[in-house]
Amino acid sequence: MTDTLIKVDLDTHASNNPQTHNRWHPDIPMACWVKPGDEFILETYDWTSGAIANNDDASDVRDVDLSTVHYLSGPVGVKGAETGDLLVVDLLDIGSLKGAEWGFNGFFSKQNGGGFLTEHFPHAQKSIWDFHGLFTDSRHVPGVSFAGLIHPGLIGCLPSQDLLDTWNKREADLIATNPERVPPLANPPAPHTAHMGALKGEARDKAANEGARTVPPREHGGNVDIKDLSRGSKIYFPVYVDGAGLSVGDLHFSQGDGEITFCGAIEMAGGWVHMKVDLIKDGMSKYGIKSPIFKPSPITPNYKDYLIFEGISVDESGEQHYLDVNVAYRQACLNAINYMTKFGYSPAQAHSILGVAPVQGHISGVVDIPNSCATLWLPQEIFDFDISPGADGPVKHIQGAVDMPIAYDK
Amino acid sequence: MTDTLIKVDLDTHASNNPQTHNRWHPDIPMACWVKPGDEFILETYDWTSGAIANNDDASDVRDVDLSTVHYLSGPVGVKGAETGDLLVVDLLDIGSLKGAEWGFNGFFSKQNGGGFLTEHFPHAQKSIWDFHGLFTDSRHVPGVSFAGLIHPGLIGCLPSQDLLDTWNKREADLIATNPERVPPLANPPAPHTAHMGALKGEARDKAANEGARTVPPREHGGNVDIKDLSRGSKIYFPVYVDGAGLSVGDLHFSQGDGEITFCGAIEMAGGWVHMKVDLIKDGMSKYGIKSPIFKPSPITPNYKDYLIFEGISVDESGEQHYLDVNVAYRQACLNAINYMTKFGYSPAQAHSILGVAPVQGHISGVVDIPNSCATLWLPQEIFDFDISPGADGPVKHIQGAVDMPIAYDK
Amino acid sequence: MTDTLIKVDLDTHASNNPQTHNRWHPDIPMACWVKPGDEFILETYDWTSGAIANNDDASDVRDVDLSTVHYLSGPVGVKGAETGDLLVVDLLDIGSLKGAEWGFNGFFSKQNGGGFLTEHFPHAQKSIWDFHGLFTDSRHVPGVSFAGLIHPGLIGCLPSQDLLDTWNKREADLIATNPERVPPLANPPAPHTAHMGALKGEARDKAANEGARTVPPREHGGNVDIKDLSRGSKIYFPVYVDGAGLSVGDLHFSQGDGEITFCGAIEMAGGWVHMKVDLIKDGMSKYGIKSPIFKPSPITPNYKDYLIFEGISVDESGEQHYLDVNVAYRQACLNAINYMTKFGYSPAQAHSILGVAPVQGHISGVVDIPNSCATLWLPQEIFDFDISPGADGPVKHIQGAVDMPIAYDK
Amino acid sequence: MTDTLIKVDLDTHASNNPQTHNRWHPDIPMACWVKPGDEFILETYDWTSGAIANNDDASDVRDVDLSTVHYLSGPVGVKGAETGDLLVVDLLDIGSLKGAEWGFNGFFSKQNGGGFLTEHFPHAQKSIWDFHGLFTDSRHVPGVSFAGLIHPGLIGCLPSQDLLDTWNKREADLIATNPERVPPLANPPAPHTAHMGALKGEARDKAANEGARTVPPREHGGNVDIKDLSRGSKIYFPVYVDGAGLSVGDLHFSQGDGEITFCGAIEMAGGWVHMKVDLIKDGMSKYGIKSPIFKPSPITPNYKDYLIFEGISVDESGEQHYLDVNVAYRQACLNAINYMTKFGYSPAQAHSILGVAPVQGHISGVVDIPNSCATLWLPQEIFDFDISPGADGPVKHIQGAVDMPIAYDK
Repeated sequence: MTDTLIKVDLDTHASNNPQTHNRWHPDIPMACWVKPGDEFILETYDWTSGAIANNDDASDVRDVDLSTVHYLSGPVGVKGAETGDLLVVDLLDIGSLKGAEWGFNGFFSKQNGGGFLTEHFPHAQKSIWDFHGLFTDSRHVPGVSFAGLIHPGLIGCLPSQDLLDTWNKREADLIATNPERVPPLANPPAPHTAHMGALKGEARDKAANEGARTVPPREHGGNVDIKDLSRGSKIYFPVYVDGAGLSVGDLHFSQGDGEITFCGAIEMAGGWVHMKVDLIKDGMSKYGIKSPIFKPSPITPNYKDYLIFEGISVDESGEQHYLDVNVAYRQACLNAINYMTKFGYSPAQAHSILGVAPVQGHISGVVDIPNSCATLWLPQEIFDFDISPGADGPVKHIQGAVDMPIAYDK
Repeated sequence: MTDTLIKVDLDTHASNNPQTHNRWHPDIPMACWVKPGDEFILETYDWTSGAIANNDDASDVRDVDLSTVHYLSGPVGVKGAETGDLLVVDLLDIGSLKGAEWGFNGFFSKQNGGGFLTEHFPHAQKSIWDFHGLFTDSRHVPGVSFAGLIHPGLIGCLPSQDLLDTWNKREADLIATNPERVPPLANPPAPHTAHMGALKGEARDKAANEGARTVPPREHGGNVDIKDLSRGSKIYFPVYVDGAGLSVGDLHFSQGDGEITFCGAIEMAGGWVHMKVDLIKDGMSKYGIKSPIFKPSPITPNYKDYLIFEGISVDESGEQHYLDVNVAYRQACLNAINYMTKFGYSPAQAHSILGVAPVQGHISGVVDIPNSCATLWLPQEIFDFDISPGADGPVKHIQGAVDMPIAYDK
Repeated sequence: MTDTLIKVDLDTHASNNPQTHNRWHPDIPMACWVKPGDEFILETYDWTSGAIANNDDASDVRDVDLSTVHYLSGPVGVKGAETGDLLVVDLLDIGSLKGAEWGFNGFFSKQNGGGFLTEHFPHAQKSIWDFHGLFTDSRHVPGVSFAGLIHPGLIGCLPSQDLLDTWNKREADLIATNPERVPPLANPPAPHTAHMGALKGEARDKAANEGARTVPPREHGGNVDIKDLSRGSKIYFPVYVDGAGLSVGDLHFSQGDGEITFCGAIEMAGGWVHMKVDLIKDGMSKYGIKSPIFKPSPITPNYKDYLIFEGISVDESGEQHYLDVNVAYRQACLNAINYMTKFGYSPAQAHSILGVAPVQGHISGVVDIPNSCATLWLPQEIFDFDISPGADGPVKHIQGAVDMPIAYDK
Repeated sequence: MTDTLIKVDLDTHASNNPQTHNRWHPDIPMACWVKPGDEFILETYDWTSGAIANNDDASDVRDVDLSTVHYLSGPVGVKGAETGDLLVVDLLDIGSLKGAEWGFNGFFSKQNGGGFLTEHFPHAQKSIWDFHGLFTDSRHVPGVSFAGLIHPGLIGCLPSQDLLDTWNKREADLIATNPERVPPLANPPAPHTAHMGALKGEARDKAANEGARTVPPREHGGNVDIKDLSRGSKIYFPVYVDGAGLSVGDLHFSQGDGEITFCGAIEMAGGWVHMKVDLIKDGMSKYGIKSPIFKPSPITPNYKDYLIFEGISVDESGEQHYLDVNVAYRQACLNAINYMTKFGYSPAQAHSILGVAPVQGHISGVVDIPNSCATLWLPQEIFDFDISPGADGPVKHIQGAVDMPIAYDK
C-alpha cells in the first residue's frame, strides 16, 4: 500500500498545516523526502482551504480573500535532484477525500478578482457540483452530466532565488504601468496571509515578504490550469533547487480550456494525488527545456461530438484588434453562451458550462492580419438533450426553474 | 456522377477565370446556381494561382505579390437563400487535381508578409510536400510523414454592402494607428490586382475599389484557417445576401493550429471540393448565430500520442505581458522548436513541422494574472523515430544533410 | 503522378482482361512488375464483374453464378521478392472509379450461397448504396448514413504449388464429409469459369483444374474481409513465390465485422487502389509469421457511441452449444436485429445495416464453459434518430414505406 | 457520501458472509434493498475468495477447487422491479480495497479447468500484477505496463425458477453427450460448496441442489467477462424476479477479449463497485430484449496503435474446420504469441499478455466458406520497447531473467 506522505484535515485550516504553503520561495523547507522511483500520495485542501461552502449562497465567492490562495501540499524533496535536472512526475491517480465528493465553480465579482468575461458577469455567482464516481452534475446547472478529467490546477517545483527575483521584478514592472487597475494587472507578494510551510519567525517573515504569489503559471509550471495534465499524464519539470521541491494542489474535477470562470474549474473540496517521481539528470540542457513538457493520459473522457464556435479579434463593441487571440476566444465563448441560451440556459449557466466541462479552446489562426481566429469546442454528449442546430429551430429543454446563486457587491 | 460546376485550368492564371475572385464584394455575380439539397464539385487554384513552384528555390516565396491572393472558386448562388438564413454546407470530400499531388509551405520574408515567428525567421524559406494518397512527406523536412487533415483554409458567403462597409471602416481605423508598419496591421482594398469574377468595366472598378481583402477571417467565416474544418465536417454559415454566394479556396492538405508559418499550411497546388448545401430558414435569429459554427468530421487522423509544450505570456526578452495568449503560444512554439533541434532538425525545419503537421494549439489558461498559458501539442506518431524524452538524452536522428531552401531579401 | 498499372473497363467483362484472374495458382503470369519502394495504382472490377445491377430487382442476386468470383487485379510481381520474405504493402488510398460511385449489398438465397443468418433470411434480397464523397446511404434502408471504412475485401500473394496442394487437399477432405450439403462446406476448383489471367491453352487448363477458389481467406490472406484493412493501413504478407504476386479486388466501401450478409459488404461497383510495396528480407522466419499481420489506418471513422448486444452459445431453439463463438455471435446479431425492428426497420433492413455499417463483432468470452459470449457493437451515430433505450420506449422513426427488394427462389 | 451496502473482510472467507453467494437461484434472499435512482457501493471478494496468493508459487492455481467460485456480492433488491422490466445499472466507479492493490492471472492445469490454449499450456502457471493507481505491471512479465480497463467479470440479476430450470436442463443435456470429458463440457450444480447467501437449513439445501453454477454467461448476463463493461458503462438487464436481485463480483483490473487465460483476467484481490440503478418498466417487451445490452464507458484507455494478427479456421495440425471462429481466434492468438517470443518473451508470458492487456478479438469474417477469419489486436503502446516489424528484424528486449512460476500436476 502506497504511503500517504502529507495528510490534510478539512476541519482545520490549511495555514495550521506545516506541510502546506501558499507562496513560492526556495527557503520553504521540504515537507518530506522521497527517492527517485518512489510512489507516494499527497492529500490536498481545496485552493481556498474551505472558504467556499456547499450551499446556495454566493456571498462567500464575493467576499473571498484572494491573497490567501492557493494552499499547496509540499514541497516534496527528491533525493539526488539538482539544478538542471528534469523531474519526471507520473500522476498515477487523483481522487476525492472521503466525504468531500463535491466541488464548486463560480465567477468572482469584478471588484474582487474578476475573470475572462467579467464585463458580462460582473457579480459573484456560484454553482455546486456533486461527484458520482467518475461523473459530475450540478443542482444549479441542469441538463448536463459528464465524466471528470481530473487534474491538479497547480503543480510545480520551487524556484531558485534568482528565478524568484526575476519573477518579482518583471511582475512589479507590469503592475507599475497601472497600479490602480481593478482587477489588478498582477499580484505582488502579500506577506500578511503568506503561509510558508514549516518556516517560522524571521526566516518566515523574510520569505513571506518576497514569496511569489501562486496565481500565475510561470517557467516552473505552477498554476498552469491545463485540463490535460490529468491523472495518467507524465510531466517533465525543470529543477531549480537541490531536492526539486515538488508541490501540488488546486485539484479540479473538470475544467474547460482557459478556465474562463476563474473561480475556477470544478474546484474539489478535498483530494489526494498518487504520484511517482524520477529524474533525468541534466535534462534541461540535454533537451533544451525551459518550461515543463508533458504527455497526456491514456485515459481521458472520449467526448468527440463537438459543436464548434468561431471567434475573431473584433470585440463586442465592433472594434478591430490586431491578431489578438484573447479577444477572439472571448468572442467564441460569447457566441457559445448566446447559442446555449436558445435552449433555455441562463447566460450564467452557459458560462459555467464553458468553465467546467471538457471544452476545448483552440488557437486556430494567428497570422491572417488583422484577425486572429479562435475556436471553442463544446462536446455535445454532455447534454441530456440534442443541442445540434436543425431545420426546426431550438427546443427549450431547460425551463429556467433554477439558476446559479448570485451575490451582488455590497 | 456529381456535376463539377466550376473547373480550373492550372496552366492558365486564375484572373482569367470568371468563376473565381480574390476579393469579397456583394456585387460579384454568382458563378453558378444550385438548389438546397444539391451536391456539386468546385475545382480550385492554389491560393496564389501558381506563384509558388515545386522546386528548391525560395525566391518565389520572397517575391510573391500578396495583393493578389486568395483566388476563390465561386460565388455559388443557392436558390431560396435569404439574409438571416443559415447555409448548411457538408464538405463531402476534398482532393487534389490529377497531376497536382503536391503542396508548398514556407515563411514569408519579414519585409513581405512576415508571420507569427517572423522575428526568428525573417527570411523567405520554403518546403515542398508530396502527396502519397492519404499521406504526405517532404524532401526538405526528413523524418516526418503523416496523414492529411484536408480542409479549405478559406470558405464563406458574400457580405452584404453594410457588412462590407463595417469591415472596411474598422480595418482602416486600425491601419490608421500605425500606417507605416512592416508588416502592416491590416490590408486595405487593392483595386489593381482585384479579380472580381465576371464583373466588368465600371461595375468591376467600383467593386474593386471597395472589395475587402480575403486575408483575415471575419463574421462570414472566410480565411479562418481552421484545420478541423476538414472533409467530412458540416458548417453552418450566416447568409448576408440573397442567394448566399458561397466561395471556397486555399485548400490545405494539412496544417497545425494557428497556421503559424503563414505561407501557410501545406498549400495544395490544385484541388476540388465535393459539397452539399442546405438551408435553415431564419437560422441566424433562431440560434443566435453571428459567426459560423461547425461539427468536425467523423474521419480525421487519430494521432493521440502527443508531447505537449507549455508557454506563458513572458516574451523572449523576459518581458511580462498581461494575459496575452499570442505571447504564450509563441513561447510554446519556440519551446517545441528548440526541443526538436536536439534531434537534429534545423530551426526552420522544426518551425515548418509546427506549421504543417496536425499540431494542436490550446488556450489553456486565460485568467491567472498576469500569465496566460498556451500549449502546443505535437503528435509523436508523425516521426519516423522516438522523439520522447528519456534518461539517456536525445539521439540525433536527423543528420542535417538537407535543409529548407532560403532566399534572402534583395 | 502515380502510374496506373492495371486498368479496367466496366463495360467489358473481367474475363477478357488478362491483368485479372479469379483463382489462386502459382502459374498465373505476373500482370506487371514493380520494384520495392514503388507506388502504383491498380483499378478493380466489383467482385462479380458486373453481375449485380443498380436497380430494384434482386433476381440478379438470386441467380448469380458464384463459381465466377472474385475477379482480382494482378498479380503484381515485385522484383527481388523471394519465398520467406515479407511483402510490406501500404494501402495509400482507395476510391471509386468515375461514374461508379455506388455499391450493392444483399443476401444470397439459401439455395445459392446462403450466409450467416440464412435460416432467417433464406431468400435473395438486395440494397443499393450511393456514395456521397466520404459518406454513403441507401434508398432501400432509410435513416442511416455513415462514413466509409473503405478496404479491399480480398488481398494477398500467390501461393506456392505446395501451399496450393495443401489447400486443395484439406478442403477436399472437408467436402468429403458431407458432399451434398447446401450450401456446400467448401468450394472445389471449378475450371469452366476459371479466369487464369494471361495464361492460355494447356497451361491455362492445367492451372484452372487445380486453381484454388478465391472464396476463403487462407494463410496468404486472400478473402479475409477484415474491415480494418482499410485505406491507410500497412500489411505484412508472407511471400510464397519469387516475385510475390500481389493481387487485390473485392473493394468494400464499408462492412461490419463478419461480413454477415455475405453478398457482402457494400460492394463497390468499380474502384482503384493506390499502394506502395516494400520487402523485409527473410521476414517470415525473423518474425515467426505464417499469416499476414497489419497495422490499422490512422484515418478511420471515429464512431464511438456504441450500443452493444450480447449473445451466448445457446441457439435460437434453446439448444446448448459448447463454447461456440459462431452461435454466440449469431445470437448477438439476432438480438440487435430484433431491437432495431422496434424502431420500424424490417428485419431485412436491420440485417443489412449489420452487414454494411462499421459494426464491431468482439469475441468477448471463450472460456466460461459451456457458453461463449460474443458482442455486437452498433454505432449509434450512424442513425438519423436516437436509437438508445429510454424510459418511454422506442419511437417508430422508420415508417416502412420502403423495404429491400426480394427475389424468391424459382 | 455514498452508502456501502455490502462490506467484505478479506481476512474472513466469503462463505461466512451472508451478503454474498456463489450460485444463481431465485430463493436467495435479497442481501439489501435500494430504490430506483439510488446510488450505493458494494464491496467484493476476489472470485475465489482468497484461494490465490500474492507469491511466486503456482501450486494454488493448480489445486484450486473450482466448484467454489464465483463469490458474488448481492443480491441487491430494487423496489418496484418486476419481471419484464429492464434494470438500468450505471457503473459509476470501480476500485481496489485498501491494501489489496494487486491481482493475479494464470493458466489452470488441463486437469483442473483448462483454458482456451490448454493444449499448449497444460500446466498451472501464474503471474502477479501490482496496481499503481490507474496502471499495472507484473514482476513476472517484464516490459509491459498499461492502464486498467476495470470491470466486473460477472454481473447480473437472479433467474426465475423457470429460467433456472431451463439452464439446468440444457446444460445437463450437453454434459450427457460426454460426461467423462476433461475438462468437462459444463458444470452441474455442486451443492457441497454452494454458498446460498443468507439461506439456511432445508431451504439452503434445496436451493443448493439446483443452484446454477456461476461459470457461464447466460441470458441474464452473469459471467460475461466482457472487458468493455467497464467503469463508466451503462447496462440494461432483463428482470426475471420481483426485486430484480442484482449481484456483482469477479472484478478485473484489465482483460483481453476472450479472457483466454481463464484464470483469468487480472483478478482483483478485493474491490468495490459504486453503482446506481433505475428501471425501464416493461422494457424487455418494449425493446425486444432477451439478453443485456449496454453502452460502453466514455473513459477507457485510448490505446490505438494496434498490431493485428489474423487467424483462420485451419487448426495447428493443418485440419480444415468449417467456419469455426474459435479455431480461427486460437490461431490468431498463437500467431501473436509466436511473434512476441521473437522479442524475448517466453510463450507463457506472451500468453499472459493476451489474457490481461486490453487486447481486442474481432470476428472478422464468418461467411467465406470454409474459413472463418478472426483477428487479435495487440496494442503496441503497452510495451516499453518497439514491437513493430522492421527491415532489421526483431531486437530481443526481454532477456529471459524471469518467467512465470509453474506448478506441474501432481
